[in-house]
Amino acid sequence: MYGAIEAGGTKFVLAVGNEKGDILDKQVIPTEHPTITIPKVINFFKNKGIKKLGLGSFGPIDINEESNTYGQLQKTPKNDWVDYPLGETIKIALNVPIKIDTDVNVAAMAEAKWGNAIDVNTCFYMTVGTGIGAGAYVHGQTLKGLSHPEMGHIKVRRHPEDTYVGSCPYHKDCLEGIASGPSLEKRWGKKGNELANDTKVWEIEAYYLAQALTNYIYILSPERIIIGGGVMNQQQLLPLIRKRVIEMLNGYVSSPYLTGKEIDQYIVSPGLTDEAGIKGALYLAINS
Amino acid sequence: MYGAIEAGGTKFVLAVGNEKGDILDKQVIPTEHPTITIPKVINFFKNKGIKKLGLGSFGPIDINEESNTYGQLQKTPKNDWVDYPLGETIKIALNVPIKIDTDVNVAAMAEAKWGNAIDVNTCFYMTVGTGIGAGAYVHGQTLKGLSHPEMGHIKVRRHPEDTYVGSCPYHKDCLEGIASGPSLEKRWGKKGNELANDTKVWEIEAYYLAQALTNYIYILSPERIIIGGGVMNQQQLLPLIRKRVIEMLNGYVSSPYLTGKEIDQYIVSPGLTDEAGIKGALYLAINS
Repeated sequence: MYGAIEAGGTKFVLAVGNEKGDILDKQVIPTEHPTITIPKVINFFKNKGIKKLGLGSFGPIDINEESNTYGQLQKTPKNDWVDYPLGETIKIALNVPIKIDTDVNVAAMAEAKWGNAIDVNTCFYMTVGTGIGAGAYVHGQTLKGLSHPEMGHIKVRRHPEDTYVGSCPYHKDCLEGIASGPSLEKRWGKKGNELANDTKVWEIEAYYLAQALTNYIYILSPERIIIGGGVMNQQQLLPLIRKRVIEMLNGYVSSPYLTGKEIDQYIVSPGLTDEAGIKGALYLAINS
Repeated sequence: MYGAIEAGGTKFVLAVGNEKGDILDKQVIPTEHPTITIPKVINFFKNKGIKKLGLGSFGPIDINEESNTYGQLQKTPKNDWVDYPLGETIKIALNVPIKIDTDVNVAAMAEAKWGNAIDVNTCFYMTVGTGIGAGAYVHGQTLKGLSHPEMGHIKVRRHPEDTYVGSCPYHKDCLEGIASGPSLEKRWGKKGNELANDTKVWEIEAYYLAQALTNYIYILSPERIIIGGGVMNQQQLLPLIRKRVIEMLNGYVSSPYLTGKEIDQYIVSPGLTDEAGIKGALYLAINS
């Protein structure tokens, strides 16, 4: 049996699964102060007989296995968790090996192994929710280097009609600061699901997300883009994003996926629905 | 003996080298119409006894070895070369196997193998000259997927004092359209080397290039960034870019390379000076 943790900005998903990737037991707990959340995590896994643990976490987090601070959170906008040794605390308490990557990197890997990108070699995964993050699976590995990608913090050009100052504590109006769920709510004074029929809301949101995807396409050239997260539950948004990506690329990348309606098979929703992250963490445990 | 071609927007570099990467014979010819340039290429390699050829080319170009149009140029802004079967023409004429990648991808690989990134596992290479292009070496391979990266065509925010419309035929004011050598010349009405003492020129240039590098760092998290090309011959530019990158990241990526003066070892000039591209093409031939 393998343990899996998806540590997110608003909730932790905890699961136990087998080597085929089946989830046999699962629990969701809110992300509160570590002193509240972590004992619940330990308690869930205790006596479950897991032999390895995979952790897909929000970031920034140290994912360098050779580092002294492997699994330690860094300058996250979630203040209670800054510098918290997430991986080490869990590893010691449960006495099992733990493998750590970002939530979005493992989600990209899970979609490549078991989801909507099993037919291609490279997969890009983006989530638009409490925050905006993205990961990639490239050449048989998740993407990392000096640190891990923090793709939600790129800057995109401002929509001419949008004057919202932005909510990122580090960069004000980076992508996450202007297009995450909370930013959307602050800009319009209502939650996304109360704004479903306001076309201007989604035109601006699609403008930002399509710009970001266009940059990711130019930089990574992924073979499939998966886009999930709470904000994407607004079904009208994905078609708007696809249309805008085609317009912005303006035919420069010679692929039917990026010039016509085949984009419907290129930018898609997660095949694992809301389980891409937790299944990715499970995959990490199984293959560590 | 191995053959190497660096096919660029203004010149073709042709070389013959050995398996250690030493260049034994080299010639540079201008990039003109294919009917003029290609016979010169063939003539250079004829009777040199090369057993394999590596080609690092400008793009967009098809670099998928399983494709029917492998080595064919695509919608390049260089009109004479659109749809030109560059790889196939040379392969048939010389009757040797040819391996093809982008000029910037092979340059990234050469810097990782023989240049200023031999001590790290991932290398990002950018050139700022006639055009702007970038490539990456990640997990032991150059970065590719649906196609290859076209990183020079991302959009960055406009400098508030810059009103130049941009020169990219596909996207007007994408990065290449506002920060390449020719864009700089069109904006100011003079060549870069005549503007060396005009601080505003380099402040704007650094603003655009630093924004782009910040995006590349957030998306790829490379362990080293190499930046070359004709525009970078302005020695005042690199320190300005480094300073701006630190400001823009604003401490978000927890690495001494991105927060203080160690950035001088992180964003560097090519170790292979102007031979990164041709040596990368040679590496491609040797290892194909």
